[in-house]
Amino acid sequence: IPSKLPSTGVSIFTVMTRLANEHSAINLSQGFPDFDCAPELVEAVARHMRAGHNQYAPMQGVLALREALSAKIERLYGRRYDPATEITITSGATEGIFSTLTAFVRPGDEVILFQPCYDSYAPAVLLNGGTPVFVTLRFPDYRVDWDEVRRALTPRTRLLLINSPHNPTGTMLSADDMRELARVLEGTDALVVGDEVYEHILFDGRRHESLARYPELADRSVVISSFGKTYHTTGWKVGYCAAPQPLSAEIQRVHQFVTFAVNAAIQLAYAEIVARDPLAADLAPFYQAKRDRFLKLIEGSRLRPLTCEGTYFQLVDYSAITTERDADFARSLLREHGVASIPISPFLSGVEPGTVLRFCFAKRDETLERAAERLRRV
Amino acid sequence: IPSKLPSTGVSIFTVMTRLANEHSAINLSQGFPDFDCAPELVEAVARHMRAGHNQYAPMQGVLALREALSAKIERLYGRRYDPATEITITSGATEGIFSTLTAFVRPGDEVILFQPCYDSYAPAVLLNGGTPVFVTLRFPDYRVDWDEVRRALTPRTRLLLINSPHNPTGTMLSADDMRELARVLEGTDALVVGDEVYEHILFDGRRHESLARYPELADRSVVISSFGKTYHTTGWKVGYCAAPQPLSAEIQRVHQFVTFAVNAAIQLAYAEIVARDPLAADLAPFYQAKRDRFLKLIEGSRLRPLTCEGTYFQLVDYSAITTERDADFARSLLREHGVASIPISPFLSGVEPGTVLRFCFAKRDETLERAAERLRRV
Ligand SMILES: CSCCC(=O)C(=O)O
Ligand SMILES: CSCCC(=O)C(=O)O
Repeated sequence: IPSKLPSTGVSIFTVMTRLANEHSAINLSQGFPDFDCAPELVEAVARHMRAGHNQYAPMQGVLALREALSAKIERLYGRRYDPATEITITSGATEGIFSTLTAFVRPGDEVILFQPCYDSYAPAVLLNGGTPVFVTLRFPDYRVDWDEVRRALTPRTRLLLINSPHNPTGTMLSADDMRELARVLEGTDALVVGDEVYEHILFDGRRHESLARYPELADRSVVISSFGKTYHTTGWKVGYCAAPQPLSAEIQRVHQFVTFAVNAAIQLAYAEIVARDPLAADLAPFYQAKRDRFLKLIEGSRLRPLTCEGTYFQLVDYSAITTERDADFARSLLREHGVASIPISPFLSGVEPGTVLRFCFAKRDETLERAAERLRRV
Repeated sequence: IPSKLPSTGVSIFTVMTRLANEHSAINLSQGFPDFDCAPELVEAVARHMRAGHNQYAPMQGVLALREALSAKIERLYGRRYDPATEITITSGATEGIFSTLTAFVRPGDEVILFQPCYDSYAPAVLLNGGTPVFVTLRFPDYRVDWDEVRRALTPRTRLLLINSPHNPTGTMLSADDMRELARVLEGTDALVVGDEVYEHILFDGRRHESLARYPELADRSVVISSFGKTYHTTGWKVGYCAAPQPLSAEIQRVHQFVTFAVNAAIQLAYAEIVARDPLAADLAPFYQAKRDRFLKLIEGSRLRPLTCEGTYFQLVDYSAITTERDADFARSLLREHGVASIPISPFLSGVEPGTVLRFCFAKRDETLERAAERLRRV
């Protein structure tokens, strides 16, 4: 059986988490908290299940959740998405991205991706017969070079997939970036897809530049986010796409055949928490304290942290230790020092990764302390 | 924006359930129970969530569930699937079907579908650039004509998608059918995908002819099933694919980018119930009693029931009432008599649907009684 994804193995997250478990290493690789979600959220799910919400949810998602999201997005970013037609609840942002790319990418289409990028983007393009066109964000600041984007655009460019706050680099697009993006796209009919799952994890007073804030962009954009990172429930797998009606209609056409619908009780629980606390304003200081603690803890090590503006990931440059390749160094760090991280190379195509690893700091303080103690010894 | 699924509207299930709610009709359309799942199952999910299983499950699914399924399939159908590599947990059977077709269907490939067929099959083929080749099951007994299958097979046939017990007709493939299928495929390299989600809803002592029972078929097959129909939890959205390792590897390559993983706590709850009660032997008599009750109740009507061997769907021929088209008659039945059903035409391409409607009898006895009272007046 010839593979449709011949160059894709098991994802680096699965590999590193499995290795971490096998070696009883401290797992700062795959991005998930090692602390729990709010007990009230679990009880809300149980309550809705007990109340009998155990059969198919509507294909587009539970109305209460679409309404809560519409209100949240309008309040935060100033654009109103009609809950009746412009919001689609998906099985995590991953399905949102996959269904969106499947709705819009055809054989021969080009899709501009900014690498390093999340490992599902290029396969989703390839499975639809599209061609990923990579614009590289370069060490050490990983900024977008908009002239490079201009050169990458062709009449075949179907869409650009942006991600801010950015996984794995922790950088964010600025208001200037968004205006540049709008200018670059003038006169084209390219769409924009924004993976905004870390929208609430922002540091040092920064503002999230959602596509929804910029009407000239939002009119041609699909805004994708989820709940797992915001509410410490990465395993619940609920996300959403917000987009103008004609785009949402195409996404729903695909979504209804990819997964059809999403767990009803969990949607109802999220609807309550989003309605109650749309800004999730406590999250940024919570993770900023974790970032700062981790930075402080590794000060005595030979790892040099890069700037982290958002997300719960910290990149570090390990060139003071070794010039080993990142995948190799990540493995020896895991085996010899008992700390699992993520190398950057799986997120890159055709460029050198440099001496950089990603650490997830969505961990209990004691986990960060134990990990840093080991890292200081490297 | 040109659509990649131009001839696909909102699914008939969404349309009819929405209309049923708007008209306060009795909803025998979309297939889901109007009674609840076992309270213990809800409490099991709550228990696993309280125990902190709220982060990403493994990409292939929770090991305990894969083990319970492996044991169940071996006990029921005699084939062992290695839980480590040959079982993939998906976001419902729908995602299982979609990810499987996405793994194996390329532009130019042909996929044999038996129509009337579930509405996600053809779009999943089309989105992968494949061509659905329809073999028609004909009124009133909807049996497979294997000579027609032979004529439909070409060197481009990538796979055949079978579904037994069959939605919407309620027919089942026999052991003879399975042997015919094996003969038809001799010397070809076509794969078989089996949608077996109604595997436990079987009537009059019939046996489910899973692909897993037939080694010469199972070696080239993906067996897809789920938990929603078996445990009255259609809204929880967990299904699975069992297939030989080389096929499972390709499915997992796709699955990891379509949804990545499935809710962890729900998988753990299902793992317990599958391990405790792998045969789900109470389900068949439970639904047989519902089928028989419904048949008895509509005896006094002018609806003529067709043979229902499995599933929770009953087809009826309404030609004694009208020669109206099925979609029109379903709407007037809903508006004028307050009973929602599903017409067959959305499951057919290029053939006349005949005067047939589908009723879902996964309903409380009083619901069936109220519906039948209305149907007797038509
Ligand atoms: C879907 S597992 C990967 C989790 C994640 O987002 C990351 O670690 O980058
Ligand atoms: C996914 S909604 C459709 C439910 C169902 O399987 C049916 O009614 O046939």
